[in-house]
Amino acid sequence: MAPQMDALANLSPRARDLYIKMQRFVEDECIPAEKIYEEQLGEGAQRWTTQPAIMEQLKARAKELGLWNLFLARDYPEGAGLTNLEYACIGELTGRSPHLAPEATNCAAPDTGNMEVLAKYGSPAQKEKWLKPLLDGEIRSAFAMTELKVASSDALNIETTITRDGDDVIINGHKWYISGVGHPNLAVYIVMGKSITAPARTTSSGKPNRHAQHTIVLVPANAPGVKAVRAGHVFGYDDANHGHFEVIFDNVRVSAKEHLVLGEGRGFEVIQGRLGPGRVHHCVRALGMAERAMDLCILRMRDRGSTFGTPLSDHGVVRKYIADARMALDQARLLVWHAADRIDQVGGKGALKEIAMIKVVVPNTACRVVDMAIQLHGATGVSQDTVLANFYAGLRTLRIADGPDEVHTQQIGRLEMRRYAELKEKQLKGKL
Amino acid sequence: MAPQMDALANLSPRARDLYIKMQRFVEDECIPAEKIYEEQLGEGAQRWTTQPAIMEQLKARAKELGLWNLFLARDYPEGAGLTNLEYACIGELTGRSPHLAPEATNCAAPDTGNMEVLAKYGSPAQKEKWLKPLLDGEIRSAFAMTELKVASSDALNIETTITRDGDDVIINGHKWYISGVGHPNLAVYIVMGKSITAPARTTSSGKPNRHAQHTIVLVPANAPGVKAVRAGHVFGYDDANHGHFEVIFDNVRVSAKEHLVLGEGRGFEVIQGRLGPGRVHHCVRALGMAERAMDLCILRMRDRGSTFGTPLSDHGVVRKYIADARMALDQARLLVWHAADRIDQVGGKGALKEIAMIKVVVPNTACRVVDMAIQLHGATGVSQDTVLANFYAGLRTLRIADGPDEVHTQQIGRLEMRRYAELKEKQLKGKL
Amino acid sequence: MAPQMDALANLSPRARDLYIKMQRFVEDECIPAEKIYEEQLGEGAQRWTTQPAIMEQLKARAKELGLWNLFLARDYPEGAGLTNLEYACIGELTGRSPHLAPEATNCAAPDTGNMEVLAKYGSPAQKEKWLKPLLDGEIRSAFAMTELKVASSDALNIETTITRDGDDVIINGHKWYISGVGHPNLAVYIVMGKSITAPARTTSSGKPNRHAQHTIVLVPANAPGVKAVRAGHVFGYDDANHGHFEVIFDNVRVSAKEHLVLGEGRGFEVIQGRLGPGRVHHCVRALGMAERAMDLCILRMRDRGSTFGTPLSDHGVVRKYIADARMALDQARLLVWHAADRIDQVGGKGALKEIAMIKVVVPNTACRVVDMAIQLHGATGVSQDTVLANFYAGLRTLRIADGPDEVHTQQIGRLEMRRYAELKEKQLKGKL
Amino acid sequence: MAPQMDALANLSPRARDLYIKMQRFVEDECIPAEKIYEEQLGEGAQRWTTQPAIMEQLKARAKELGLWNLFLARDYPEGAGLTNLEYACIGELTGRSPHLAPEATNCAAPDTGNMEVLAKYGSPAQKEKWLKPLLDGEIRSAFAMTELKVASSDALNIETTITRDGDDVIINGHKWYISGVGHPNLAVYIVMGKSITAPARTTSSGKPNRHAQHTIVLVPANAPGVKAVRAGHVFGYDDANHGHFEVIFDNVRVSAKEHLVLGEGRGFEVIQGRLGPGRVHHCVRALGMAERAMDLCILRMRDRGSTFGTPLSDHGVVRKYIADARMALDQARLLVWHAADRIDQVGGKGALKEIAMIKVVVPNTACRVVDMAIQLHGATGVSQDTVLANFYAGLRTLRIADGPDEVHTQQIGRLEMRRYAELKEKQLKGKL
Repeated sequence: MAPQMDALANLSPRARDLYIKMQRFVEDECIPAEKIYEEQLGEGAQRWTTQPAIMEQLKARAKELGLWNLFLARDYPEGAGLTNLEYACIGELTGRSPHLAPEATNCAAPDTGNMEVLAKYGSPAQKEKWLKPLLDGEIRSAFAMTELKVASSDALNIETTITRDGDDVIINGHKWYISGVGHPNLAVYIVMGKSITAPARTTSSGKPNRHAQHTIVLVPANAPGVKAVRAGHVFGYDDANHGHFEVIFDNVRVSAKEHLVLGEGRGFEVIQGRLGPGRVHHCVRALGMAERAMDLCILRMRDRGSTFGTPLSDHGVVRKYIADARMALDQARLLVWHAADRIDQVGGKGALKEIAMIKVVVPNTACRVVDMAIQLHGATGVSQDTVLANFYAGLRTLRIADGPDEVHTQQIGRLEMRRYAELKEKQLKGKL
Repeated sequence: MAPQMDALANLSPRARDLYIKMQRFVEDECIPAEKIYEEQLGEGAQRWTTQPAIMEQLKARAKELGLWNLFLARDYPEGAGLTNLEYACIGELTGRSPHLAPEATNCAAPDTGNMEVLAKYGSPAQKEKWLKPLLDGEIRSAFAMTELKVASSDALNIETTITRDGDDVIINGHKWYISGVGHPNLAVYIVMGKSITAPARTTSSGKPNRHAQHTIVLVPANAPGVKAVRAGHVFGYDDANHGHFEVIFDNVRVSAKEHLVLGEGRGFEVIQGRLGPGRVHHCVRALGMAERAMDLCILRMRDRGSTFGTPLSDHGVVRKYIADARMALDQARLLVWHAADRIDQVGGKGALKEIAMIKVVVPNTACRVVDMAIQLHGATGVSQDTVLANFYAGLRTLRIADGPDEVHTQQIGRLEMRRYAELKEKQLKGKL
Repeated sequence: MAPQMDALANLSPRARDLYIKMQRFVEDECIPAEKIYEEQLGEGAQRWTTQPAIMEQLKARAKELGLWNLFLARDYPEGAGLTNLEYACIGELTGRSPHLAPEATNCAAPDTGNMEVLAKYGSPAQKEKWLKPLLDGEIRSAFAMTELKVASSDALNIETTITRDGDDVIINGHKWYISGVGHPNLAVYIVMGKSITAPARTTSSGKPNRHAQHTIVLVPANAPGVKAVRAGHVFGYDDANHGHFEVIFDNVRVSAKEHLVLGEGRGFEVIQGRLGPGRVHHCVRALGMAERAMDLCILRMRDRGSTFGTPLSDHGVVRKYIADARMALDQARLLVWHAADRIDQVGGKGALKEIAMIKVVVPNTACRVVDMAIQLHGATGVSQDTVLANFYAGLRTLRIADGPDEVHTQQIGRLEMRRYAELKEKQLKGKL
Repeated sequence: MAPQMDALANLSPRARDLYIKMQRFVEDECIPAEKIYEEQLGEGAQRWTTQPAIMEQLKARAKELGLWNLFLARDYPEGAGLTNLEYACIGELTGRSPHLAPEATNCAAPDTGNMEVLAKYGSPAQKEKWLKPLLDGEIRSAFAMTELKVASSDALNIETTITRDGDDVIINGHKWYISGVGHPNLAVYIVMGKSITAPARTTSSGKPNRHAQHTIVLVPANAPGVKAVRAGHVFGYDDANHGHFEVIFDNVRVSAKEHLVLGEGRGFEVIQGRLGPGRVHHCVRALGMAERAMDLCILRMRDRGSTFGTPLSDHGVVRKYIADARMALDQARLLVWHAADRIDQVGGKGALKEIAMIKVVVPNTACRVVDMAIQLHGATGVSQDTVLANFYAGLRTLRIADGPDEVHTQQIGRLEMRRYAELKEKQLKGKL
């Protein structure tokens, strides 16, 4: 069995062609470029001002190959026409070289989700100004939701304020771990805040609608008052030139008409629309990382000789580790494919539970697999001599990003409990 | 989401119709009959001599509905024409009432695997004599492989002897945990033994072929020398009228021509041909059991009120348990569907790894889910007042039956390691 | 290392002597008597009316050896003068033969906890009437708390009513899984109910004190209106002649003065006093069961030969299983010893967290170990041919009895959070 | 309960005094100095040449307080006279500030183990030259065992050669992940190599003794041919100024008499003597790290407010996480104390299994606890704003250092199997 199982079975002829091209691109061009990229990025402060030349070459190459913006599924006229399931299969390949391939193919987070927001909810002017250059790979973007001082895993806790002032809105807030802010090409933030001057809305039962207070606003990265304070590390890594920044919005003023997305109070609507495919993308990249880790294990266990009289690859415990990882990964992949297919069938809203499930399952599974790979690599596994430790750091963070495991798990439990009425009826009839 | 996910998406129109009929049959007729069955079975020794009338009624009903022998996939002319994937979806439903629905639909182990053996490898006479009444539900069968005195998880350890004597073979052996032996309708054993008088075969490299020493022989249950010594329990359950028996074959003599399957030394060939679909069947029934356990939890947590000021269904830990179970079950199901589909695509031999994986994953997952359900049910969970403790006992045994987890896990690890050459080539080219 | 680690190091010379005597008694007299006991108990209804003669012989023998009532720690004049830690060490040995040794030494639940209640809170008359014959092993007792219809893991949900009527109280309630009710010698129930006619009490802050509504009352087993409806099973076991019964108290009338323990509204006080040592006793017996399971594994793995060319005891995965079990068990044992020692040092109330911890850790650990042992025993492991499946059923139930894991875990978390003030102070001073 | 449980109960009056002093030293002086240390260390290449002034101040202070060399147990005349158990209790405190307190108190790895080697096996001249300045904290040392090109988890695979040449030995080898090599005060390596010119020894059964080929040799850090090639990272951390280096020994020549420890072929003897207490030290520091992580969780959960209407500290899942961590940590600590006490009672050799067990249990437990703490801290948990991610990296590496988990687990399993003969005898007598 190939590492990606029978991915081809899910694909239309055109998607198969893209799959094969992507596999070659990643293996033949991205992975060999990883060291060059890191060298070109260099040391110290320049890591935040350098866009390595190799990346621009890879981008040009990916465009040429037609491996560009594949993430944007067939619902979008700007997209590549793939289904979410098809992209799930192809996108996993980019995860094998996660620092290069996604950016090179313009399929990197957070731009992908941001492009979806703009494509779905942006005004024609917003599309022209931000979506077009994003789709062209000329600029990059950030998504500013998490805050330093509140438990923003409950988005209702967000304290960044968006205040109407005539035709403008004024943004004040303290964001944290905003990914992509370090990139030299960063041009725009998509900011989530609380509209304190907007009229309060009520739910259908007349109570204040706490989910109608938030607003999404586009903020140019160079707007006065936007301060990228410092880079947050991830297990010692700076993740340059991408990075995860503490950002202060200090009386940032932008015109409402041009910068609000959908309008005041519609923030939750926007971010919910953003989530489905974006989570699939994160997950498939995580699978690609874990598969590369598996491959490295198989090589290591065969190449490393024997201990205590037995080849490493024949040790019962090694085989068990490898087998457990394979079983976990294949299950996780099938769950992702299933969720992607559900999005294709019934849309992101209808696939709420499926999306929540992959958000929990895949980062956890991939973490376990890469951790196992680290263990089988010994000291080399935690070092810079393989991709493993760095992969682990990234995957571990995925269990926190976009809502921690716990939030999604509770939601899944709650959704599952909704089957009560149907089950009760069955039980009363003796069918259960 | 319905408990069985979007099973219907996998099905042809005909299979959908059968799915819906099966769902109704299990819920409307089998589950309500469970208590009646148990009452008719009674207490004490009669449990091994009684075929409850309700079972024969259910069998008649299932035949009438066309829910008969569905397990036998389209490769067999005697079969119902479903794919393995289609039966995987439909068969899960029978797992919801595991003591009634499989037998009622003639889809119960070990008959299913035994019928496959006969359909695949039986001579015309063997088919006429044994397969036909099995397909008609008139007789039942047992598969005698495990032995009391050796670690038969390595089948090479099997010590039962099959000795040629003229036109006959003589069988001597001590088998253990032979399921189905208690059934009043038991008519035939399929016995695995070692052909000690057959000519030794060699492998292609000239060594003795240790996998060519074993033979499968059909033994009529009433043959002189066949002694069903006693019933093995499963966590205190006798599993009557099915049961798991210690059986002694004491100089049992049968004619070779009529009773050997394929011929001496071909035992491994036969049992390997038996395994694929049979493992899928075990797994889908296990999923059905676990899903019923989930349903019971949802009912219990809502119906049982509050503890410490919070409804049970709102406790964070309860939600987490339910969510974890849902994630595990849906992944396991997708893995089974995937394996079933692989069997359809490339046959059981080609799907070796996929089949090994479900053999490990599904019983473990189902055990964990049912154990969780027991915990949420308190003392009631371990008692006879729900199906849970009994389900657990059966599922726990599945982790041992047909080879323990460990055997399959080692095999998966070994198969995974075979990717080495391909990976090494990539690595040497800098692609990994 | 001996299975019980260096238990002797914890013991005074007198306790060492008892330890060694107990070890011999269990190994030389109880374990060999297990089959005899089961045979004398017989089949069917007689299992609830028979006290096997061998048990009375073992009791006489234990008395003779001075191995009697050792559980009752030095705080009690009636006791054997051991510390809780000392009994923890010695009591583990009784767990190796859990159906015989505890009863034979008059150290079986629920009598132990009930004797503690009577010794601690009973009136002189109550002691004379019930405690004395219990200490003499002439009668047995039950503790009736769990109810069928409410989530009694929160004891505040208990609905059994205790109604004053002149000098009497009238008890009405529906209890469930009351252990020991099947025993022919059962003489008295200790019942927890709600005093609906007692004056309401308030907490220090003036609110109704919900923990001052419950009352403990002694109910003679032969009082009119006491109905032991049926035996609850544990998996497929009836656990005769002990058993776990559904019991209805139907207008049971007893005199208040002679039957109330401590007085109306003091039920929580009584049951809390009961818990500490009782939980240690359950835990050490569980350890003894798990150690016997370990011993059986070591024998089996060596005696069972080879699979796939390697002795079972040399398989890497087998060694890992055994090692993991050993690490878990030794940790669990140390935690129990630590908790017992804390009870000796600061009393049960002061050792609340320690007691809650062992209540969770030990049954879980023992379940995992015995489950591992079952796996290594194959079909034999789930059968009646070893003690394993039966041990598992008992240990699994311990995760539910006396409050499920979840209740204790939440309490531990809550207690741990109480360190906040102290930590905050440190943090503010830069010490954390 | 205080985080360190009732550590004081294990301590003599003098040790109690030291415990309290150490607690104050760590909390009042080390933890507040952590940021200063990091600032003084600076950025880039200077991190390997700087010994931060604050460290020397802390060392002076620790000496003054008598908190110096406490690790060296009472067996050594040079030591502080504590038992291993006593130091286990006190040493945990240093783990709360793992980059400062151990070095400040001259109790840091690998010096501690190296000092033990010298104190135990060093010649008077070796002691004078290396042990004295190490005990005085004037120089630091490294232990060079792991190699880059072989699976050195089986030490027999070590390929570094030690060749006799007249009165000298010549060392050639390629070591990897040698901790402490970056330190400006590094003066000496303790190197493990294979004596290829020494006479072969045989075991008592006459076979070549593969454990008598290795030799320990002292190599001055400034000896010609010693090349510290580069620093290995741990996840993204350089661990300066300590570090983990790739070191090449290129025809390094030293006089045999002055540099061999014990003599050729006695390497295994030496390293086995080194292991016991050193593993306890690693483990207790790991416990200290995990306890600090716990403390941070408790603060965070209370200080961080509510999500979804419930204070974080009241979420059932948060409580469960905290409780599970507490149960795991307390068990792990007791196991360490038990092992330390065994070393005190029967020596390191007699406590082989106990030491192997803590080597597996504690790093795993501490990893899980710190990982949980990261999860509860969200993005902050993986960042540089708490100690957590850095602690995790260090603890994760402990699962690999000094032999990976798997080696120790196999050893424990093997040792446990040795109880077979004793158990078999019991079984044959019906006692089991």
